[in-house]
Amino acid sequence: MLFKDIAILDENLDYQQHQWVGVLGDTIDYIGDDEPSDAAKYGEVYEGAGRLLMPAMYNAHTHAPMTLLRGYAENLPLHEWLQQKCWPFEGKMTGEDNYWATLLSCAEMARYGTVSFSDMYYHTPERARAVDESGLKANLCTSPLAFEPKPIQEFPIFAEMEDSIKNIDGMADGRIKFEGCIHAEYTNNDVTAKTVFDWAKEHNTRMHVHVSETEFEVAGCRERHDGLSPVQWLESLGAFDVPAIAAHCVWVDDEDIEILAKRGVTVAHNPASNMKLSSGFAPIVKMLEAGVNVALGTDGMASNNNHDLFQDMYLMAMLPKGTELDPTLITPKQAVFAATRAGAIAQGRDDCGLVKEGFRADLAVLDITGTSWCPINDMLTNVVYSSHGSDVVLTLCDGRVVYRDGSWPFIDIDMVKAEVVERTQRIQRELAEQVD
Amino acid sequence: MLFKDIAILDENLDYQQHQWVGVLGDTIDYIGDDEPSDAAKYGEVYEGAGRLLMPAMYNAHTHAPMTLLRGYAENLPLHEWLQQKCWPFEGKMTGEDNYWATLLSCAEMARYGTVSFSDMYYHTPERARAVDESGLKANLCTSPLAFEPKPIQEFPIFAEMEDSIKNIDGMADGRIKFEGCIHAEYTNNDVTAKTVFDWAKEHNTRMHVHVSETEFEVAGCRERHDGLSPVQWLESLGAFDVPAIAAHCVWVDDEDIEILAKRGVTVAHNPASNMKLSSGFAPIVKMLEAGVNVALGTDGMASNNNHDLFQDMYLMAMLPKGTELDPTLITPKQAVFAATRAGAIAQGRDDCGLVKEGFRADLAVLDITGTSWCPINDMLTNVVYSSHGSDVVLTLCDGRVVYRDGSWPFIDIDMVKAEVVERTQRIQRELAEQVD
Repeated sequence: MLFKDIAILDENLDYQQHQWVGVLGDTIDYIGDDEPSDAAKYGEVYEGAGRLLMPAMYNAHTHAPMTLLRGYAENLPLHEWLQQKCWPFEGKMTGEDNYWATLLSCAEMARYGTVSFSDMYYHTPERARAVDESGLKANLCTSPLAFEPKPIQEFPIFAEMEDSIKNIDGMADGRIKFEGCIHAEYTNNDVTAKTVFDWAKEHNTRMHVHVSETEFEVAGCRERHDGLSPVQWLESLGAFDVPAIAAHCVWVDDEDIEILAKRGVTVAHNPASNMKLSSGFAPIVKMLEAGVNVALGTDGMASNNNHDLFQDMYLMAMLPKGTELDPTLITPKQAVFAATRAGAIAQGRDDCGLVKEGFRADLAVLDITGTSWCPINDMLTNVVYSSHGSDVVLTLCDGRVVYRDGSWPFIDIDMVKAEVVERTQRIQRELAEQVD
Repeated sequence: MLFKDIAILDENLDYQQHQWVGVLGDTIDYIGDDEPSDAAKYGEVYEGAGRLLMPAMYNAHTHAPMTLLRGYAENLPLHEWLQQKCWPFEGKMTGEDNYWATLLSCAEMARYGTVSFSDMYYHTPERARAVDESGLKANLCTSPLAFEPKPIQEFPIFAEMEDSIKNIDGMADGRIKFEGCIHAEYTNNDVTAKTVFDWAKEHNTRMHVHVSETEFEVAGCRERHDGLSPVQWLESLGAFDVPAIAAHCVWVDDEDIEILAKRGVTVAHNPASNMKLSSGFAPIVKMLEAGVNVALGTDGMASNNNHDLFQDMYLMAMLPKGTELDPTLITPKQAVFAATRAGAIAQGRDDCGLVKEGFRADLAVLDITGTSWCPINDMLTNVVYSSHGSDVVLTLCDGRVVYRDGSWPFIDIDMVKAEVVERTQRIQRELAEQVD
């Protein structure tokens, strides 16, 4: 595809008008002021008028199959939400339920310009199949909850980990990766955790873990582990000896932030979820100042309730201005970076997340003719504060169209929605029968 | 128009499926489970499959012409934003600039399901002309800034007020109202304010005023007025002897809230603007508990930066969960009510803001076939947390289509956007020349 005379956010996320961008295979082959000499080789010419080409987005923390629970449990205290609503519902979810729910999440992410996501859940083969079919990318992991202090090898979930690192890591031309994970400090113990981290090192894979989401979690951790915070506990056991995503980090202190920065840990910031579940506001300004790679996540659909990363980008830029009472905090560029390049880095996709020659053609094209884009006094400001994820009209993943003008080339959206509705209703029926 | 077999939010904002809704002239004439016997009289039959019919929205606080400043001044401290950027820009805006900018705001609001707005600005005739042409409704006021203590009658702006109450109030079949206003306590004095409030009483009109937007404002007010808060000062001078909108109310205490409730004042809550300008978070939970009518506003586009009231509805529901660390606060129904019926009440449009027989046909129809609407475990939750304003596909104001599927029957959108861009550039050139 050859984008003709189009506005772009360039590799520095600066706004450039009247650019030509050529995509060859899975790669951005050409960016320039002029039509390339060998234009024909790029195939379709995409008219750039009224469009903005920007890097696609990378969702650094989600639980894709939880889409079945969208709007299912609302306005409840956290423990009631989790124990009385989410867990019983999730307990009824089969592998096929996970497959269809993940497909819907893939469709929704592609629709809003996201091409890749870091996904912590179960039923890895079914999730991988959905990701593969959708054309998207994902860093999948499965999350041990281990209360008994024994090596991960002694838990049933280890078979899935072993199978996944062999058969799923690297599949779909490397679009799908598998990585190490523990659910969180409070659902694990030193022995299990350490053996998972060792396993990740052994397989040269990455880590993904929930960290310091609530104040309660941090207080409990310090009691359980001689005053160590979750960040300190994880570091002490080697969780950060491989590149890692620490999801949430709402209740981290200066020492924690220093560790995260020093160890190159990516913080997956989930502003919508953290607000909706009343976890709090993550200190992202401090993290960015300390040099932490802050990426963005939607978290699961029971606590967001959509996969529109534009909304989380907006919240990332807005919330600190409110909580810190300082309107100079978080520039539009910092927010766009978090939703794009920072997420690619978090997923070990080093050649992704920028509109740059030689980089993967992971691109989102926005229709900027809508009323809320007028006038354009500052393009990045419009992208962050005036946009809607629904302004995305075209999403490319590794150079392939995964969403365009209401259609998903690789997804039968009507079938996916019908399956999701039916499966959600089946689970609710099963739960109701159980109560009766 | 006859909506056939459509999902609706009924007069209690409860979700009802398979309803028939007939619109006759400017009124909702029929709502029922079955096709009305005299269906032909409603004209066009609108297929309800995949659609949700809900009350249109009422924007309780904005400055419509400021759309020219969208994205113009960002990440600046408040005084620099206002004094070095906004005011010089606004000083260059002509009546015609106001007309075109207001037309764009009308288009943007209609596009996101808003049919009416409470607008505080200048150049009332030009704003009224834009509202009239667009098919929308508005409560317009013009805001005295009066530092000299003399009656409003001695200020030049009084001529506009007198002209507007005679010629603009009630125009366009009552779609346009004119009301009393002072900009704020800190830009006025007792004498001027009192004569404005008396004028409002004399003309039996409503009031609109900025109240307690910043902590600084409240502290200053207490110093200037023997310890009175802005709410107390306004009440003491009679501002609330007529129905009033108090915009912002971020820094109100329990006594203030008691006054607002007792006097039937509507608080126009502007969560996006209050965050973006680092004003803070309004205590809307307390206000709602006290019985205050809380409506929603987008504020001007220099501090939002779009006219999508769905976004403010979302923030209203989300923010208190984060700031108060309680996920049970603000139900979806409370948020939808604030964006719809509460705004209609605030504007004295008593027969507006609900899908109810006999009420004005101010309606928004949403496409709910998008990925983020699936599944529908709870419709109101999807409306508040999963939706985008851009899901609106049809907006009716007094029974007339003001937006439908990307078109505005009464607005030449391409001309409006071109005028807005050109006028914004002209002002920026004038400002640059001034600096040179």
